[in-house]
Amino acid sequence: MNLLLEVLWLLVTTIYFCLEAFVKLFAPVKRKSVRGETVLVTGAGHGIGRLTAYEFAKRQSKLVLWDINKHGIEETAEECRKLGAEAYAFVVDCSKREKIYSAAEKTTKEFLPAMMSINHGHIVTVASACGLSTLPFLVSYCSSKFAAVGFHKTLTQELAALGKDGIKTSCLCPVIVNTGFVKNPSQRLLPLLEPEHVANTLMEGILTNQKMIIVPPILNVLLMLERLLPERAIAGVSRLFEVKFDVAVGCKDKGKQVGTLSIVISYTKSNS
Amino acid sequence: MNLLLEVLWLLVTTIYFCLEAFVKLFAPVKRKSVRGETVLVTGAGHGIGRLTAYEFAKRQSKLVLWDINKHGIEETAEECRKLGAEAYAFVVDCSKREKIYSAAEKTTKEFLPAMMSINHGHIVTVASACGLSTLPFLVSYCSSKFAAVGFHKTLTQELAALGKDGIKTSCLCPVIVNTGFVKNPSQRLLPLLEPEHVANTLMEGILTNQKMIIVPPILNVLLMLERLLPERAIAGVSRLFEVKFDVAVGCKDKGKQVGTLSIVISYTKSNS
Repeated sequence: MNLLLEVLWLLVTTIYFCLEAFVKLFAPVKRKSVRGETVLVTGAGHGIGRLTAYEFAKRQSKLVLWDINKHGIEETAEECRKLGAEAYAFVVDCSKREKIYSAAEKTTKEFLPAMMSINHGHIVTVASACGLSTLPFLVSYCSSKFAAVGFHKTLTQELAALGKDGIKTSCLCPVIVNTGFVKNPSQRLLPLLEPEHVANTLMEGILTNQKMIIVPPILNVLLMLERLLPERAIAGVSRLFEVKFDVAVGCKDKGKQVGTLSIVISYTKSNS
Repeated sequence: MNLLLEVLWLLVTTIYFCLEAFVKLFAPVKRKSVRGETVLVTGAGHGIGRLTAYEFAKRQSKLVLWDINKHGIEETAEECRKLGAEAYAFVVDCSKREKIYSAAEKTTKEFLPAMMSINHGHIVTVASACGLSTLPFLVSYCSSKFAAVGFHKTLTQELAALGKDGIKTSCLCPVIVNTGFVKNPSQRLLPLLEPEHVANTLMEGILTNQKMIIVPPILNVLLMLERLLPERAIAGVSRLFEVKFDVAVGCKDKGKQVGTLSIVISYTKSNS
């Protein structure tokens, strides 16, 4: 096709898609059913992973639970069974094999072929607001979360390029969650998130096939400002939020404080 | 300070910073001198690393050159000496130690303390346009480049938080460069970059302390559109550019094609 015509066509469709996106903001959203689906939750022994497992259990999914912590994972499985779901607990250390994003990648590689053959499934990458914007003194953490976001985006684009529209992807990016990951966190204007709220938002995002689950949603506006405003203005905006937490600068064990929480949830249609 | 007053003050300063940024677009840019500075270039045995080393050699920096390839690195060092610079070649395999972004992180950790003590230096992270946007079939590559961008951004913010304004940072993000990294690359509208052009742009960015060196600059506009437009419109824009290259889907050695090119250039004031 002629390039000029293509550009014109692009303009027309862009206007249409913008209108469509605007209308969709007010349209009721359909939630899919996850009943009977097999769901793998890594890091399910505590925090958001555990709470997400409960959400699936309430909806009668079959749960495969992974965590490094034997006690925690068995507790989660027990609770899932009480909620009426099948649940199998396994002690697995994803972080040992390699860095955090490699673990997500490897887990995905194990399950993706089966999903692709039936063109059905959902892969959830748990990143963080630190995968979109940054915080000082968390260099390793932010780098790995940026990698997780990049992983999710490339995977999404690849599945689209391969025509696998039955496999959905979601990426969770919450601001600081009150799970004890950083010490004495505080921020102004943005809430300090509770794990229950994040798990609920994640579940809602999965059921409605949201690609980026940014919590709280106002963060979307801040990220857009970050692209549009000059650097010195962005610094001013950051200061307004007064994000604070304790860090041990120069501490030898600093690396340890960098968390390894990452959940990959993948579910494929059950055969039963 | 009262929150309302703070927000008002932020609005005023934001308008000022926007005007300032606009004026700066037309103001002449001062280039700093790198004469006599000690410059470490990793991956200097070929491609952009080698060409960047030549640019520093022309400006009489002292060069410390690292590469996995003994022959390549010695050739680069010899050429740097011909250009009138001191040059020392070392065979170092950064990629062996760990994944690409860890290598950048570790190299930085080795040199940063010395830079911080004199509050002088410059750290350059070589990422890619794939660290800001994504391409299908390059999941590992994009993830690692997203991590590199995250590393650069967090490091920049951390140095600012510590008041180390004498240590500059730059991050290079070019679109596909004609270095044989992907086979038969082609794209419409955007140029296929030549390594010489990228090395020159990088050098210009370093000398003028640019934080993000995006090549070609028009990519900035596309990245902004990516934030503003709905998903389906973005897919249309991507299609317009027709980025194409050969991939070996399902090939066992596919991982090998994922490049490990990463340069960290750090220079500290020479004592002589």
